[in-house]
Amino acid sequence: MIEPIYPKSFASDNHAGVHPVILDAMVAANHGDAPAYGGDTWTATFEQRVKDVFGPKAEGFAVLNGAGANMVGLALMLGRYDAIICPDSAHIATHETGATERLLGVKLVTVPTKDGKLRPDDITARLSVLGDHHQPQPSVVSISQATELGTCYTPAEIAAIAEAAHAAGLRLHVDGARLANAAAFLECGLDEITTAAGVDVFSFGGTKNGALAAEAVIVLDPSLAPSVPFLRRQSLQLASKMRFISAQLTALLTDDLWRQNAAHANAMARRLADGLTDIPGVSLVQPVESNAVFAQLPVPVATTLQRGYLFHFWDETTGVVRWMTAFDTTPEHVDDFLDDLRKAAS
Amino acid sequence: MIEPIYPKSFASDNHAGVHPVILDAMVAANHGDAPAYGGDTWTATFEQRVKDVFGPKAEGFAVLNGAGANMVGLALMLGRYDAIICPDSAHIATHETGATERLLGVKLVTVPTKDGKLRPDDITARLSVLGDHHQPQPSVVSISQATELGTCYTPAEIAAIAEAAHAAGLRLHVDGARLANAAAFLECGLDEITTAAGVDVFSFGGTKNGALAAEAVIVLDPSLAPSVPFLRRQSLQLASKMRFISAQLTALLTDDLWRQNAAHANAMARRLADGLTDIPGVSLVQPVESNAVFAQLPVPVATTLQRGYLFHFWDETTGVVRWMTAFDTTPEHVDDFLDDLRKAAS
Amino acid sequence: MIEPIYPKSFASDNHAGVHPVILDAMVAANHGDAPAYGGDTWTATFEQRVKDVFGPKAEGFAVLNGAGANMVGLALMLGRYDAIICPDSAHIATHETGATERLLGVKLVTVPTKDGKLRPDDITARLSVLGDHHQPQPSVVSISQATELGTCYTPAEIAAIAEAAHAAGLRLHVDGARLANAAAFLECGLDEITTAAGVDVFSFGGTKNGALAAEAVIVLDPSLAPSVPFLRRQSLQLASKMRFISAQLTALLTDDLWRQNAAHANAMARRLADGLTDIPGVSLVQPVESNAVFAQLPVPVATTLQRGYLFHFWDETTGVVRWMTAFDTTPEHVDDFLDDLRKAAS
Amino acid sequence: MIEPIYPKSFASDNHAGVHPVILDAMVAANHGDAPAYGGDTWTATFEQRVKDVFGPKAEGFAVLNGAGANMVGLALMLGRYDAIICPDSAHIATHETGATERLLGVKLVTVPTKDGKLRPDDITARLSVLGDHHQPQPSVVSISQATELGTCYTPAEIAAIAEAAHAAGLRLHVDGARLANAAAFLECGLDEITTAAGVDVFSFGGTKNGALAAEAVIVLDPSLAPSVPFLRRQSLQLASKMRFISAQLTALLTDDLWRQNAAHANAMARRLADGLTDIPGVSLVQPVESNAVFAQLPVPVATTLQRGYLFHFWDETTGVVRWMTAFDTTPEHVDDFLDDLRKAAS
Repeated sequence: MIEPIYPKSFASDNHAGVHPVILDAMVAANHGDAPAYGGDTWTATFEQRVKDVFGPKAEGFAVLNGAGANMVGLALMLGRYDAIICPDSAHIATHETGATERLLGVKLVTVPTKDGKLRPDDITARLSVLGDHHQPQPSVVSISQATELGTCYTPAEIAAIAEAAHAAGLRLHVDGARLANAAAFLECGLDEITTAAGVDVFSFGGTKNGALAAEAVIVLDPSLAPSVPFLRRQSLQLASKMRFISAQLTALLTDDLWRQNAAHANAMARRLADGLTDIPGVSLVQPVESNAVFAQLPVPVATTLQRGYLFHFWDETTGVVRWMTAFDTTPEHVDDFLDDLRKAAS
Repeated sequence: MIEPIYPKSFASDNHAGVHPVILDAMVAANHGDAPAYGGDTWTATFEQRVKDVFGPKAEGFAVLNGAGANMVGLALMLGRYDAIICPDSAHIATHETGATERLLGVKLVTVPTKDGKLRPDDITARLSVLGDHHQPQPSVVSISQATELGTCYTPAEIAAIAEAAHAAGLRLHVDGARLANAAAFLECGLDEITTAAGVDVFSFGGTKNGALAAEAVIVLDPSLAPSVPFLRRQSLQLASKMRFISAQLTALLTDDLWRQNAAHANAMARRLADGLTDIPGVSLVQPVESNAVFAQLPVPVATTLQRGYLFHFWDETTGVVRWMTAFDTTPEHVDDFLDDLRKAAS
Repeated sequence: MIEPIYPKSFASDNHAGVHPVILDAMVAANHGDAPAYGGDTWTATFEQRVKDVFGPKAEGFAVLNGAGANMVGLALMLGRYDAIICPDSAHIATHETGATERLLGVKLVTVPTKDGKLRPDDITARLSVLGDHHQPQPSVVSISQATELGTCYTPAEIAAIAEAAHAAGLRLHVDGARLANAAAFLECGLDEITTAAGVDVFSFGGTKNGALAAEAVIVLDPSLAPSVPFLRRQSLQLASKMRFISAQLTALLTDDLWRQNAAHANAMARRLADGLTDIPGVSLVQPVESNAVFAQLPVPVATTLQRGYLFHFWDETTGVVRWMTAFDTTPEHVDDFLDDLRKAAS
Repeated sequence: MIEPIYPKSFASDNHAGVHPVILDAMVAANHGDAPAYGGDTWTATFEQRVKDVFGPKAEGFAVLNGAGANMVGLALMLGRYDAIICPDSAHIATHETGATERLLGVKLVTVPTKDGKLRPDDITARLSVLGDHHQPQPSVVSISQATELGTCYTPAEIAAIAEAAHAAGLRLHVDGARLANAAAFLECGLDEITTAAGVDVFSFGGTKNGALAAEAVIVLDPSLAPSVPFLRRQSLQLASKMRFISAQLTALLTDDLWRQNAAHANAMARRLADGLTDIPGVSLVQPVESNAVFAQLPVPVATTLQRGYLFHFWDETTGVVRWMTAFDTTPEHVDDFLDDLRKAAS
């Protein structure tokens, strides 16, 4: 049983703690010795679970955080003079302290979007540089699912992007830090928005969905998988006591805990969004399709509310805020928050 | 109470699990929300503990693994055309999949040693390149304490290295993945082999000493500390749910758990080494000063023993093996191992 | 005497050959032995000429091409987690095959502009990330003079940018591949748009202004100069037979050959622009302030003209072309080109 | 006619100027406009000449200096977690200011040698790391021909190295800064020590053999060639006025000027070596097989001689010096040098 916590943070899904089932799995893994670096049975189980969920060609590799999952996954597909096409809101473009440029050595070709979602035309419009030796060559398209703005690509939308990318010889990467939230929203399997949609490499996030620190790089193109162990090690993403990372991911992938956690967080975001409709001066600025609520409200109202709650401005100049829910956000948390917002707004 | 495990691995101290006090601390940290990325109270406690142990100038930064601790710590001190002087056995030279070269972009000037220990003369002998613009410029000396061969520098030896480095304008870095084992062997404080000895930046390892996954970069030169948060984030070493990393480090730095664990592991290595003296064909090749036993034995004897125990050859051509003990190695583990070795050797 | 060549290329100022005075200086330098890598008298002369022109603090370093001059100059000022603020038309952002990202490891924060010119407000608007360890930290502002769109900053405009940059702790870099053209247009000294305006590091281009292959990195902040020899060597920009590079730069900096060549090229661009006014369907899209003419014309007219002349579309979708003039473009070249354009347009 | 110069430098073959035939070719290339970046007829001629000399599969790419030629050539063959096996005297290991590590991001696995020459066994002895994800993976063997110690590999020796490399899945790179000197010594064709010997990528040096600044990357594996233009541009090695680089290389590859220059320099080194035999206290420390003479002599004798001549100590502690001859060294230069050495030694 998860004990409700007050005041609940609405700032980030990683302000939450660890889901008890996952923590229990870690404690249970503390039994005797185990080979380091992934040669253990917990890791073997995780690797099999990945195949169960994503198909027999899928190979999963546990890593330590989302930035690491992205860098390792992208490094697999990038040569020395390459570029990545991605939305300008992409985490790899905005919040990795330049790791994409420094560690991967690539240029990001960023596409402005309204809703965080790339379209096939955005790709084709940026391919005229192919063959021009004065410009880095796009070789990877990277999208986030759910996006940084909380929206979700349908399976068909991803397939169309994959098709546009592959037609031009590019590969498709998905930053799946919140892949579970997207699948829960879409009411589809995780494989439907990855394997079946033509994705080449993606990350599967655990930490924002109830894990302590566990993400996975999942490779669907078998030619790329043999490089992962080397790139993971070199990228500082290899845990020596790997069993404790693998145990978290296995827990998430068992009995659909990933979906349970994500669907709950999504429902709480929905509840929050629904509760905003009658609050004057407050409006949604993005469709609420995962566990993020992007709303616009008068700055003084927001700052008043921040006295009682942790959350961040997305754009302080326009009064846009991002409210995140988590696996352990309760209806009471949301309703209390709405009450306090109503008071601040009036 | 730690339950003895059979067969105990002698391959690595990271084959061990997590010390129960540390795991309990992690479980206890799973309470409510906490700001991410280090803005939490567990991290504040850890940061204070670092000052308590290493002095008021010391600033500690929790990271995810030893390779990460080394890369972040070294990056602080390295410019674009620099070189690191280190023993040729250094982990940063031999076991980071080239991360030192790729992530830091530096040349390693490696010094052959008998016992893994650098001497001040090794530094001065490699400084004739200073000022030659055809050669990278040494700016950092990096040593491991304990060394990769299980030996330990005395405080005076480190101070002499620091003096030689500083006299030439170089800084001193210590890879302290097993710093605790060294301090336990030397029966000194952790500060005596770091702060008091003139070290500029070092890592303090937790994982090999009973933590799940927790290392620290500790900065003694205050001018360098402000860069750490940026380099840690860029180097993929920032945990979002930082409290669970900080809690481990705090546990180790509380009531000298670090020393208790390390001293025990050292004692087990000592017991193992002592037990070898009467086994024909088996000899020590390095002094046993921490939790590593480097021994030479006939290859067939070693391979026979490997049927029952996990351990690695250090050099298969010469029959040198490395046996590691851990915080949870018991006297019975050692004695059983010695018995089985005796049988294999006879 | 320069013999007129038909058809003259209007595609680039580096389609031109070498000014005879510069080639003669190279031939004259082929006399006897000389120390390599810059220890020769020709290089000493060049270094002194830099001080004569740019002031006693200026230190000049000859390099092999413009990309190299930019990379060496920028590397001087960039740490490991830095960003460069520049116009989105900057050569370092668009035409270096990702060298900026790969060799420097930095993020480019690109600013959309109408005329290729950055304004002080563009800088201050992008500084809210300072201190946020999730984002690379802007440490350098880089502008091009003349810009990639052929426009020129006045000395006052550069001084204002320098002031805004310095006020926030950033340095100012100028890509001066066509610095001579700017000074010629502005009818000012080269020092007025560099040293006197607060620039920290800039490149001074020779190749586009009549040299064979010679550019210079010029450092006005004395604390940065000692690093140049190392960075130049590491960046593959050090000529062994340096005298032949230095001789070119000295020739340009002697008797104002740089100004003579640039002013002539500018005048030819002016003549071309003036000649466009009475051609139907052809219009200027940028002020003509150096040796570039950006014009818009019907695509079929442009492609007809391309049968007789080398030049490139800047944007094929809008029919914008870039016509460049050079030190050896003659009035006849321009008038013939205008005649042919008139025919194509009618 | 080359006018003799006194005192002739014996420090480096790049203290010499430019061979008049090459300089004339550059002057002749200064005729009219030409497309930039290699789209000119001089470059087409050079590319054809490369095929004539090295075979129809050979593709040649002109670059600006030897370091650049090595970095571009090696970059073609190196992934993200790779290592290069090379002699510890290799220029890429000792004199590139760490460019190999920084620009390529690879580890150099250096092999001690007596004579600068790698043997096949040196390769196989370093392959046990293949498959170990804690270590960078050797993918390229790099040798210098002639070596840094002036010795030369026979065609059979190179073929044996290529075979050992290829058998393990590695490629073979040759630093051919003095390839011409080696072919001249071996009295064989340039193709016999490259194409026919199984080399994958090599550099062909012009600058040390009479050019002003011209080297080539020559690719024998057709799958690698398409990447060169991008890597050359990104590595800052693309000349805009390429015709002047291509013209130099074409001159060298026409009428065997490369061989004439190299054979002459070699003969002068031979003359110098032969003249040492009767000078007391002076002895050769390497076989003289190209244009380098490595000799040992009393340090005071060497420093006396340095008052009149430029040359460097190779190892000041042992009194080993390197004397280089060039295309324009005359018998009189050598004989005068020997006379002065005799005086200093007596």
